[in-house]
Amino acid sequence: MACRHRSSTTTLARLAKPARLTPRLSTQPQVQSQVASAVRCFSSSRPRQLKETRCQQGKFTSETYPELKRDPRYGQVTKEHVDYFKGLLGTESAVIDGVTNENATDDIEPFNSDWMRKYRGHCRLVLKPSSTEEVSKILKYCNDNKLAVVPQGGNTGLVGGSVPVFDEIVLNMGRMNNIIEFDEVSGILTVEAGAILEVVDQFLASKGYIFPLDLGAKGSCHIGGNLSTNAGGLRLLRYGSLHGTTLGIEAVLPDGTVVDDLCKLRKNNTGYDIKQLFIGSEGTIGVITKAVIQCPQRPKAQNVALFGLESYEAAQQAFREAKGHLSEILSAFELMDAGSQALVRQVTKKNSPLEGEYPFYCLIETSGSNSDHDGEKLQTFLEDVMEKGIVVDGTLAQDETQVKALWSWREGITEALGHLGGVYKYDVSIPLPEMYQLVEDTKARVEEAGLLGDTDEHPVRAVVGYGHMGDSNLHLNVSTRRFDERVEKVLEPFVYEWISKRQGSISAEHGLGLAKKKYIGYSRTPTMVGLMKQLKDLYDPNAILNPYKYI
Amino acid sequence: MACRHRSSTTTLARLAKPARLTPRLSTQPQVQSQVASAVRCFSSSRPRQLKETRCQQGKFTSETYPELKRDPRYGQVTKEHVDYFKGLLGTESAVIDGVTNENATDDIEPFNSDWMRKYRGHCRLVLKPSSTEEVSKILKYCNDNKLAVVPQGGNTGLVGGSVPVFDEIVLNMGRMNNIIEFDEVSGILTVEAGAILEVVDQFLASKGYIFPLDLGAKGSCHIGGNLSTNAGGLRLLRYGSLHGTTLGIEAVLPDGTVVDDLCKLRKNNTGYDIKQLFIGSEGTIGVITKAVIQCPQRPKAQNVALFGLESYEAAQQAFREAKGHLSEILSAFELMDAGSQALVRQVTKKNSPLEGEYPFYCLIETSGSNSDHDGEKLQTFLEDVMEKGIVVDGTLAQDETQVKALWSWREGITEALGHLGGVYKYDVSIPLPEMYQLVEDTKARVEEAGLLGDTDEHPVRAVVGYGHMGDSNLHLNVSTRRFDERVEKVLEPFVYEWISKRQGSISAEHGLGLAKKKYIGYSRTPTMVGLMKQLKDLYDPNAILNPYKYI
Repeated sequence: MACRHRSSTTTLARLAKPARLTPRLSTQPQVQSQVASAVRCFSSSRPRQLKETRCQQGKFTSETYPELKRDPRYGQVTKEHVDYFKGLLGTESAVIDGVTNENATDDIEPFNSDWMRKYRGHCRLVLKPSSTEEVSKILKYCNDNKLAVVPQGGNTGLVGGSVPVFDEIVLNMGRMNNIIEFDEVSGILTVEAGAILEVVDQFLASKGYIFPLDLGAKGSCHIGGNLSTNAGGLRLLRYGSLHGTTLGIEAVLPDGTVVDDLCKLRKNNTGYDIKQLFIGSEGTIGVITKAVIQCPQRPKAQNVALFGLESYEAAQQAFREAKGHLSEILSAFELMDAGSQALVRQVTKKNSPLEGEYPFYCLIETSGSNSDHDGEKLQTFLEDVMEKGIVVDGTLAQDETQVKALWSWREGITEALGHLGGVYKYDVSIPLPEMYQLVEDTKARVEEAGLLGDTDEHPVRAVVGYGHMGDSNLHLNVSTRRFDERVEKVLEPFVYEWISKRQGSISAEHGLGLAKKKYIGYSRTPTMVGLMKQLKDLYDPNAILNPYKYI
Repeated sequence: MACRHRSSTTTLARLAKPARLTPRLSTQPQVQSQVASAVRCFSSSRPRQLKETRCQQGKFTSETYPELKRDPRYGQVTKEHVDYFKGLLGTESAVIDGVTNENATDDIEPFNSDWMRKYRGHCRLVLKPSSTEEVSKILKYCNDNKLAVVPQGGNTGLVGGSVPVFDEIVLNMGRMNNIIEFDEVSGILTVEAGAILEVVDQFLASKGYIFPLDLGAKGSCHIGGNLSTNAGGLRLLRYGSLHGTTLGIEAVLPDGTVVDDLCKLRKNNTGYDIKQLFIGSEGTIGVITKAVIQCPQRPKAQNVALFGLESYEAAQQAFREAKGHLSEILSAFELMDAGSQALVRQVTKKNSPLEGEYPFYCLIETSGSNSDHDGEKLQTFLEDVMEKGIVVDGTLAQDETQVKALWSWREGITEALGHLGGVYKYDVSIPLPEMYQLVEDTKARVEEAGLLGDTDEHPVRAVVGYGHMGDSNLHLNVSTRRFDERVEKVLEPFVYEWISKRQGSISAEHGLGLAKKKYIGYSRTPTMVGLMKQLKDLYDPNAILNPYKYI
């Protein structure tokens, strides 16, 4: 989790104290802010810093994962291959050639490593096609010549899925960034895969619509990458997953076949819905080149409230009440535990917007078409939960600045953790009743091992939990003072086994990539993994697409 | 389209004149009805009438489709096979045996034919498993012995997908009808495939939730059938498609493999989303045995308005305004043309709820959590569209009776058409700007051929259009006085070609089944059809599942 806005700490400094709720709230609406566009984020990725990447190159993935060996089935990229691609793509800028030009290393480096500098490949050739036809010809040629390929969007992923491990060719989609068509009556958008989410969303804002997905990396991430990773993000609670909002996809298979399913219809029951396979397949069976998205009307009003609760049980009750009272306007329900908020206070030196301290905090956002109505609904909800004793204290944002300020207590957690040292991060889904128990059990386990404490001899500073409660999506974070191999041994496979026992997911929204490939068995049965491998073999028999990853 | 309530004409008779809108509306809310459960329908199917079916048996499908021949690859069902199944399923009622018992014909007939009596097979064996394990053993045995199988849910489909053509074994899922689990905090439901939609929805109502799908056949159709046909229905505009709301599926492949993907999580990015392939696959690659569904909160308030418009252009403007004003509470936006409403008037002898006659009518429904707010939003919307001259006249339902009465002008169309004679029905999706043009062009073509007129020498009485405008889903209906082969020649392939040119869908929500198998090429490219066949071959290499249909 990182914030899209560089100035988020500045925003925190400007925090005006929002109006504090008392147990008896006044009944008049007092909580509206008209916002034309989304102003905050709380996803786990952020725009990539190309300059920094060049300055601070990380270790090669082949060094950090010594068990990975280059698959000898794949051909080496030669001058002859490069000449073919230069002939095909024409312009100089469409081919970054480190094969015949040793001086191209600096130009290639940004495509070789991820924004976290955690993964770094040995790629020597980057191709930037500008059309589906070019993508098709590239893939067919690579398939015929057994050249491995890594499809790459905005390169904002968190699991090493979008960068090479060895010398795979990078197929960067950035030049295919056109908004092809938008129907202002139906809200149906047709867009190329390389279009940047924020650019598309700003275009939609000018038409009164919104992209049904929002995440921290929106300034860099591509629509194609969003689809390929089945990005979840902020709006899932409200607008549902991309499996529901994607009407059509055009993709290219490894053999060059164009899967032409650019359907612009909400209803089309004519055969297997093959496009769904490409959503979340992380570029392992085909490369998405275009998509058709059903976009909702842009909400005219947004309200945000933050409140304190005495227990996780109360947080669940509050979620249930919020769904009842806020129903169609509820757009976020976020959970933060005391530990995560203490870390934010410690790093930012800010006072909590609430006077007391509580074991749990929830942040609620509403997005609707009528500011007065939404304010009233939120007010009624808060009165109800306070009268019932579910919520102990709460505060409502009075304007956009306060909206940002309240969100910063949720968004600021990852930044705060980052300032304090190393972090073991787990992005998991667990059925709601047991979701927070993972944090409790992990904390107890780390404590029992004598690793957790306030003093320097303890490698672990804190075990905290927060996340998208509305989606059952928990971020378990273990903050460390230094590397200590005992910590990882205590955490793994414990965390994965714990999740597996509850039929949870070891990757809620980040995907598998390289990082979680080997853990899939904790969330999927051997039968399911077998069926997945069968599909991979069907569509990519030479395994040229995004090798060493996924399954 | 047919009504779920037998008493719909009675309801019409009790129609109290709703309050008519004037161009200057009063601003106070006047339009709320608190309804605990859905009260009307407008899908294209209805509960099956078993007794009638026995009395009026239709022609065999093998007679109406003489080009279809029984595939000799399939084995004949023998006494030995029947003995195996009796041994497996145990109870007498789980096996309806017409193979060794000639007196079972009457018992088998309801499973052999569809509710429209349009399709009728020669099946002699019906199996009713009660567990996934039994389904697995049945399919494995059938696969090993090359016995063809038709999976059957509530048998409410419209394209002949759920009944045999020849002597396929019917695998009826009616005994697997348990609601397995429901989490009242998250709204996540786990249910067996044979559970009836209405039963499930009533259960959810008692918990304050709603099934994210509603259709006319809800009293008979199964959840498994809904998923297998990717049913669209009434709530799609609001809750989206089953591809988005289905979190998990358990299904059995023809070789007996259990696809165990009963995920109960909103977010789970761990590999290919294989379950999506079963949604809309009409039982051709596997049999769905269980499902996990994300259910929304049940709306507390519903409002309905009906209004008249001068043009299709105005209807599109009204839809755009409705999305803007009603946004999150808009749950239906239906279009009816003058011709369709004239037929309803002609058959029901009722007066229109509006004083004048208009080329187009729209019905709007809102579903929200606050009756006052919803009423205000609807009022503001109606004032706006009337002031702008988009809507010429309108009326708002004042109570539940009037809600039903207004819906009857939309729901009653199919019944009215049915009373008047034969109907050529097309359920299609077309991009919104051109959607109604299909009706105009079809009418012009039938007129040019001299087939349309008010007098008896003309075989065609009327060409009318109506449908789910919010989903771009048009029902084109051609009402005939008698069978005349010139009519079909004028209509087909004209209608399919017209749709194909606009990248429309020749089957919006009904599916392919037997009826539309041969027309898939009008909505899908050869590449897509080829990829579909590849999947069929992958999962069902012996082609035992639902043969002669789909692709």
